Amino acid sequence: MKARFITVEGVEGVGKSTNIAVLEEMLRDRGIDHIRTREPGGTGLAESIRSLLLDDHGGRPAELSELLLIFAARADHLEKVIKPALEQGKWVICDRFTDATFAYQGGGRGLPREFIASLESMVQGELRPDLTVILDLNPEIGLERVRRRGELDRIEQETIDFHVRVRDCYLDIARREAGRCAVIDASAEPDAVRQALQAAVADKLPELR
Amino acid sequence: MKARFITVEGVEGVGKSTNIAVLEEMLRDRGIDHIRTREPGGTGLAESIRSLLLDDHGGRPAELSELLLIFAARADHLEKVIKPALEQGKWVICDRFTDATFAYQGGGRGLPREFIASLESMVQGELRPDLTVILDLNPEIGLERVRRRGELDRIEQETIDFHVRVRDCYLDIARREAGRCAVIDASAEPDAVRQALQAAVADKLPELR
Repeated sequence: MKARFITVEGVEGVGKSTNIAVLEEMLRDRGIDHIRTREPGGTGLAESIRSLLLDDHGGRPAELSELLLIFAARADHLEKVIKPALEQGKWVICDRFTDATFAYQGGGRGLPREFIASLESMVQGELRPDLTVILDLNPEIGLERVRRRGELDRIEQETIDFHVRVRDCYLDIARREAGRCAVIDASAEPDAVRQALQAAVADKLPELR
Repeated sequence: MKARFITVEGVEGVGKSTNIAVLEEMLRDRGIDHIRTREPGGTGLAESIRSLLLDDHGGRPAELSELLLIFAARADHLEKVIKPALEQGKWVICDRFTDATFAYQGGGRGLPREFIASLESMVQGELRPDLTVILDLNPEIGLERVRRRGELDRIEQETIDFHVRVRDCYLDIARREAGRCAVIDASAEPDAVRQALQAAVADKLPELR
């Protein structure tokens, strides 16, 4: 069985961790060896880059600098963690990936889509996720959940308009790449979200039926 | 008078600092307001990226990650320091710039030239240095000088073949972009180097005659 690369996306506070746990349980139940990782991050260097991106030390990075830092972290993560795992037959579940860059830096910040596509092709070659779960939620609800959890990072502090553009961009990706993406309504009750997720995943990946 | 963007390049130990001081003196003598800066670096974020690149903490970055980190630092440096200075009429003298990326990451590491050219155009648009001083030296001599100064960083520790490829790439750039580049033989006596530098700069930039 070919190892699969699954990414989980969505606005802040959408419940990525809870739903990643559901995916992990599905894999464990079927005896599928896997790793769980996250972006930006996943290697020592990439986690250092993550701190540069999220901590508000010494002023905000230039927008293009932010974009390049994200792909620098991704290049390290792909080479040291994601590709070796897939080559060893381990499935990879990644909390955010390149769709987040299209959504946040493209949709949110308004950086040119062609810059992101060009970096995607430079860093990933032909590698794309086999399945992308897009957890969908009104960002006002998501941000309220994050606020209740504690202090907001530099991205979470963006305006509500920013987060609305992020969500719209995710939904646009889901429409354009319907074969790869499954949109789950994350505003429902936790049990309903879990069932919708399990059904959507089984629909996209026959191995998990 | 249009503010000029001058970059100074060369292998390790070639005498960039000494020769930048000569350039600064030429500008001061003519009452030309200027700033001196360096790459990777020049902003708080870019200096943090510099440490990620040069310190050998937690393993070597993936090669493509190194390339993207350099351009992330450059994007921040250009937006916050170099472009504002030039717009205010200040000349900029920069210790290394994109030619170093072609030389070290392209020539040295063997990353595809088209990746670097594509990032150059994404980050710089049409901006290129008005003058690039390439201090040329046999890298064995340069590295011996650096060794005498103390501990070597991650790049300085590369093999001699790496540094020979870097030098060859600089000389190749100088041949292909002869209008912008001045090659100075840095193996000569300091006074001779200074005079050659002053003559070459005056030849390329009429304002400094």
